[in-house]
Amino acid sequence: MVYDVAVIGSGPAGLTAGIYMSRAKLSTIVLEGLQPGGQLTTTTSVENWPGNISILGLDLMMQMRSHAEHYGCKLEMNQVTKVDFENKPYNLYLDNGQTIQAKSVIIATGASHKKLGCVGEKEYFAKGVSVCATCDAPFFKDKHVVVVGGGDSAVTEAEHLTHFTKKLTLVHILDELTAKDPIKYKIIENPNVEIIYSSAVKEIKGDGQKMMGVIIENKKDKTLKEISADGLFVAIGMIPNTAIFKDQIELDKYGYIVVKDQTKTNKEGVFVAGDVADYKYRQAITAAGSGCMAALDCQSYLNKI
Amino acid sequence: MVYDVAVIGSGPAGLTAGIYMSRAKLSTIVLEGLQPGGQLTTTTSVENWPGNISILGLDLMMQMRSHAEHYGCKLEMNQVTKVDFENKPYNLYLDNGQTIQAKSVIIATGASHKKLGCVGEKEYFAKGVSVCATCDAPFFKDKHVVVVGGGDSAVTEAEHLTHFTKKLTLVHILDELTAKDPIKYKIIENPNVEIIYSSAVKEIKGDGQKMMGVIIENKKDKTLKEISADGLFVAIGMIPNTAIFKDQIELDKYGYIVVKDQTKTNKEGVFVAGDVADYKYRQAITAAGSGCMAALDCQSYLNKI
Repeated sequence: MVYDVAVIGSGPAGLTAGIYMSRAKLSTIVLEGLQPGGQLTTTTSVENWPGNISILGLDLMMQMRSHAEHYGCKLEMNQVTKVDFENKPYNLYLDNGQTIQAKSVIIATGASHKKLGCVGEKEYFAKGVSVCATCDAPFFKDKHVVVVGGGDSAVTEAEHLTHFTKKLTLVHILDELTAKDPIKYKIIENPNVEIIYSSAVKEIKGDGQKMMGVIIENKKDKTLKEISADGLFVAIGMIPNTAIFKDQIELDKYGYIVVKDQTKTNKEGVFVAGDVADYKYRQAITAAGSGCMAALDCQSYLNKI
Repeated sequence: MVYDVAVIGSGPAGLTAGIYMSRAKLSTIVLEGLQPGGQLTTTTSVENWPGNISILGLDLMMQMRSHAEHYGCKLEMNQVTKVDFENKPYNLYLDNGQTIQAKSVIIATGASHKKLGCVGEKEYFAKGVSVCATCDAPFFKDKHVVVVGGGDSAVTEAEHLTHFTKKLTLVHILDELTAKDPIKYKIIENPNVEIIYSSAVKEIKGDGQKMMGVIIENKKDKTLKEISADGLFVAIGMIPNTAIFKDQIELDKYGYIVVKDQTKTNKEGVFVAGDVADYKYRQAITAAGSGCMAALDCQSYLNKI
């Protein structure tokens, strides 16, 4: 069988594309990868999905899955390990040995947050540890929060958080901030912000239910310092999930897919949606919007071949 | 009082912007206009809001209003009749005589569908009469539907509908289609499509609950013909709601706001979201996504002034 479209990825972008394609009566398969529903399924409450004051990330994504299935969209919990966009129909090779053929492809594989790699990071994710200040800042009203990083996104995240937190500690591995954004001066001058340079978080501690503090190591003199904190935001960069597209699709120097005309890649019939091409907004609602856009452009492409 | 931001318009774009701005603790007012919640409040079921298999348009929009209000966003049911973006803070003049001052503005006034102006059009709107095939085609499975128009969007809407309908009648006022999109040949060659040229819909008839047919007038010989039909799609063009911005913001030749860098207008601190700058996708989810993008860019702007 040759599908009209194969969607790679199952976050808000991929599932919205799946909903729009299958609702338009096009045969659609969503290759969900190892984490069906994507990143949001690992968070707890989502408070910025328009129309829902609060919804569990997992619930939102399971609702989107049902919505796609309702229109006959096939969802398959396998990972694409290799793609061949040289010949049509396009071939997608899965980790279970299967090959999927499709006339068109929508790439919605997202981007992963670089991890600290320290003890407690995984255990306390969504229990104090976060990767999105825009999403989670309001949960830390009048609390003490640690932000790790020193680049543009770290200072932006930190500045956003200061409108909510009582105290903020910025931990940066270098001895000065690398951020170019002038917003960094708001951080440097803010009396409620402490910046700890030349240091890294070595461990995140907690009571099993929520994080309660961090151990910070000074990289110069190797001294350790424990501070209590209610939250920790990791802002040390993103890695777009594009390894399998490297020789097939044009990527920029950071590995993001180069987008033309809103949803198009350099390969005819291969479209893109969500964080895999968006280093700027990275919200569930923006990803979903772009999933819809990719689907409509893909429909128009399928109409012409 | 000078607001951090004034949002003009209260559809998915405007309300999402309102939610994101107020959740970021910025003082936000949404000027809702004469139709709080926008266009979607006039439809019935929405089936393509990701995560909701079916929701009333009015309910979805009322949920977004509550969401914005939850974060302290002020909603005001007045219409902006004039804007002054020459001096800061910006001034917005309302129909009740009030003047709103704001450091930044997000324009989300949408676009209006051109109307047939015939008897029954208003009465049967959302009771058979529609303006969005992508949204409503599945409601007309195995039905007979009339599409009015002959340009690119009319033939695209018609082609999409043919995947659902039993019969489709395209009514066009000229004696040939003006569409340039090659998709028009699919319509012309489809045995289940009849094209009636040089004609216009003069009346939409129904039983008060739903439309049941149309009266079509031949513009050349003035003869009338009544045909029964379950639905009618109006696809004769859009008018972006930009009259009040004409001398303040750069518009293209069709009246759409010219967008730079995804959400920016030619005026510093004035951002744009939704259909008022989008002649292509025009979906609730794409509008909401762009409302979020405008809000995040607006936050970054406010951080720098």
